[in-house]
Amino acid sequence: MRAYEVIVKKREGGELSSSEIDFLVQGYTRGEIPDYQMSSFLMAAFLQGLNSQETAQLTKSMVHSGEVLDLSRISGIKVDKHSTGGVGDKTTLALAPLVASADLNVAKMSGRGLGHSGGTIDKLEAFLGFTPELSMENFIEQVQKHNLAIVGQTKQLAPADGKIYSLRDVTATVDSIPLIASSIMSKKLAAGTNMIVLDVKVGKGAFMENLEDATALGHEMVNIGKNLGRKTVAVISDMNQPLGRKVGNSLEVQEAIATLKGNGPEDFKELCLNLGAILLNMAEKVTTVTEGKKLLSNKINSGEALAKLEQLVKAQNGDTSGIHNTENLPQAKHYKILTADKSGFITNLDAKKVGLASVNLGAGRATKEDKIDLSVGIELNKKLGDEVSTGDELAKIWYNDEDKLLQAAPILEDAFDISESASGKSLIYGMITENTNPGELDSI
Amino acid sequence: MRAYEVIVKKREGGELSSSEIDFLVQGYTRGEIPDYQMSSFLMAAFLQGLNSQETAQLTKSMVHSGEVLDLSRISGIKVDKHSTGGVGDKTTLALAPLVASADLNVAKMSGRGLGHSGGTIDKLEAFLGFTPELSMENFIEQVQKHNLAIVGQTKQLAPADGKIYSLRDVTATVDSIPLIASSIMSKKLAAGTNMIVLDVKVGKGAFMENLEDATALGHEMVNIGKNLGRKTVAVISDMNQPLGRKVGNSLEVQEAIATLKGNGPEDFKELCLNLGAILLNMAEKVTTVTEGKKLLSNKINSGEALAKLEQLVKAQNGDTSGIHNTENLPQAKHYKILTADKSGFITNLDAKKVGLASVNLGAGRATKEDKIDLSVGIELNKKLGDEVSTGDELAKIWYNDEDKLLQAAPILEDAFDISESASGKSLIYGMITENTNPGELDSI
Repeated sequence: MRAYEVIVKKREGGELSSSEIDFLVQGYTRGEIPDYQMSSFLMAAFLQGLNSQETAQLTKSMVHSGEVLDLSRISGIKVDKHSTGGVGDKTTLALAPLVASADLNVAKMSGRGLGHSGGTIDKLEAFLGFTPELSMENFIEQVQKHNLAIVGQTKQLAPADGKIYSLRDVTATVDSIPLIASSIMSKKLAAGTNMIVLDVKVGKGAFMENLEDATALGHEMVNIGKNLGRKTVAVISDMNQPLGRKVGNSLEVQEAIATLKGNGPEDFKELCLNLGAILLNMAEKVTTVTEGKKLLSNKINSGEALAKLEQLVKAQNGDTSGIHNTENLPQAKHYKILTADKSGFITNLDAKKVGLASVNLGAGRATKEDKIDLSVGIELNKKLGDEVSTGDELAKIWYNDEDKLLQAAPILEDAFDISESASGKSLIYGMITENTNPGELDSI
Repeated sequence: MRAYEVIVKKREGGELSSSEIDFLVQGYTRGEIPDYQMSSFLMAAFLQGLNSQETAQLTKSMVHSGEVLDLSRISGIKVDKHSTGGVGDKTTLALAPLVASADLNVAKMSGRGLGHSGGTIDKLEAFLGFTPELSMENFIEQVQKHNLAIVGQTKQLAPADGKIYSLRDVTATVDSIPLIASSIMSKKLAAGTNMIVLDVKVGKGAFMENLEDATALGHEMVNIGKNLGRKTVAVISDMNQPLGRKVGNSLEVQEAIATLKGNGPEDFKELCLNLGAILLNMAEKVTTVTEGKKLLSNKINSGEALAKLEQLVKAQNGDTSGIHNTENLPQAKHYKILTADKSGFITNLDAKKVGLASVNLGAGRATKEDKIDLSVGIELNKKLGDEVSTGDELAKIWYNDEDKLLQAAPILEDAFDISESASGKSLIYGMITENTNPGELDSI
């Protein structure tokens, strides 16, 4: 087999066999197929498409390009969750302890972020001393003991994906649904859990800006899970405005803690309960999502969910005092209040602009090398649909550096639109299971 | 400007501006744009296409990636000819002296071949001592003196084309009409002549296997010439069966000499007269192609055309004795006769197979490093439409190495089909000028 012939076949719109795809993926990972042939193939795949079989095979080949975690020593059901990313998305911080408190095992690998704020691992470091690196042995033992561990992603999982993604990033072949789906799913599948819930964000602050693309991506990922024998459900949720009311690292940790205490913002709580209840339902711990939400609400009210977060932080050497007193989490030195310059309703709160303001404050990375300031960020006092009067507080900007504030403030101001009449909003558009028809969404 | 954005634009089917194309071509030639971005762009261009403006600009950028020959010191009209290549295509060897004898200046750069036989330069080396390397000074002086010089292609002309072609060759992006057209035309335009006649071959032994593609390629090249101010005409001619009756290097030189003496095979003579007459017509030396053919026939009959070949060979230090006595050209030691195993008509004489047999004998190169045996090759005694009886001589295989003969003979045998009823054949399908409608051909 030669890479050249495989490129020609895809260029001509043909369907590649499993062995052809595997040949490309393993050959490229081993450095036997050069970048210029892989990029030519990727552009052909981008323009000619990959069908479900090909996408599943691509995923499988990327999974098998490296180690696959063996979690078989952990008895019971192991679940995983992935979000395609958005502004104020601190879901893992609350969802993982929540479902762990309901006896699902969460053996989770998370990333550091390139974007509006850090990733889950960055955020967890708001608990001073938190250790994201555990040996495989310790990782498994901790899940056995507490149902929960969150560690940084190792490069041994699906190395082909890392290498191919880097190439796509510079050859304009990122925005392809089959390529995105296989990239995400290869890492999830290599991480060895039984069940996966995917949170596909859609809107101004998301990778997928329209519902059609988000739905297609959700379907593609659920299909991959089905093809490769891993139970997968995708939820399509809104990312036109930020999730919750806090954006940053320490600030998002505060909001996750508040949510586990029962005091979280409605939208964020709703998303966590739904995702968690879907996992419980997939695991057959409950028979309906509604029952699952009730069960999880009880875990919040009883304090078990919060206790699970405390167990996690403690087990990984973090300072748990912040859980009870958020003043013990990193705090920015100053804040500035942004006020409404007219009265009306908030008709737009552009997640992308809020995210950009947050990066400008230092809460996110513009390049891999950037250091994150965990303490800075934005608190949103008003959200989509809220009524405001001139002078009302719209947001509080937490900052350490005046120059950065000066860059961030006008961007944040620009994120808000105030008009005379209110407009609608959605949080969860629906979900996709193995039985959902292509292009459609099931209600939850 | 970033290569990334240009790739995205083409990926989305957009029309690139002149500066975007020039940025890519010059950046890639200078090594500032990496192979993997260029190959991604080339696949996008392959699949999304390039329109006439983009193709002309790509050609222009490649022309200006290196030197452009300045032939202004040569007074009068400088003409060039290019063939897309085929089996038994020795046209330059006869056409160049023929039109030079009719007072057109032929300042020609030719290549060595990768294919069925060598290129024009390889063939000319059948004249012992022939020097294909001349200084620019000597090249121009020789054309001033004799109207004719043929030298090897320098790497200084259109270096972008060489670099891009090498990349296309390994990334499955060769077979794109705009890319092929711009590659050919960039070298022709950099060679600095005023008028170009293109011989686009079509059929089993040609790069373009069907008339539609050949016509499209011809149009594209004529359009490039028009866009860039160079008078260009394309002729579409047959390459289902080999051109003429001799395939090889020394053998093809013999056939060119015979043609200049008035004893050439009908099809080859006809092609040379037509191409030459079109050039004379373009140069306004005659008012019709028919008049041009008559003028050129007279040059053959008067011996002036042959004398011009002799001047060329002598000026470039070759042994001219072969012109008068072909036994002085390289001769293979042995020959084997291939005979008909049944009676009927030749309904197929597959040019590709004849070419392959020729390469197996050692007449062509399989890789750039191969050394050509100038003396070996194939003489075709019967051609398409000819009637044969069992035992008649079909072809004579000239060889030096028994092993090579054993490889070549069955391939050649397989090239002939003999059936009960004769089928038609064409030599010249038509021509394309600036005024020809797309997809159509004008009769000559």
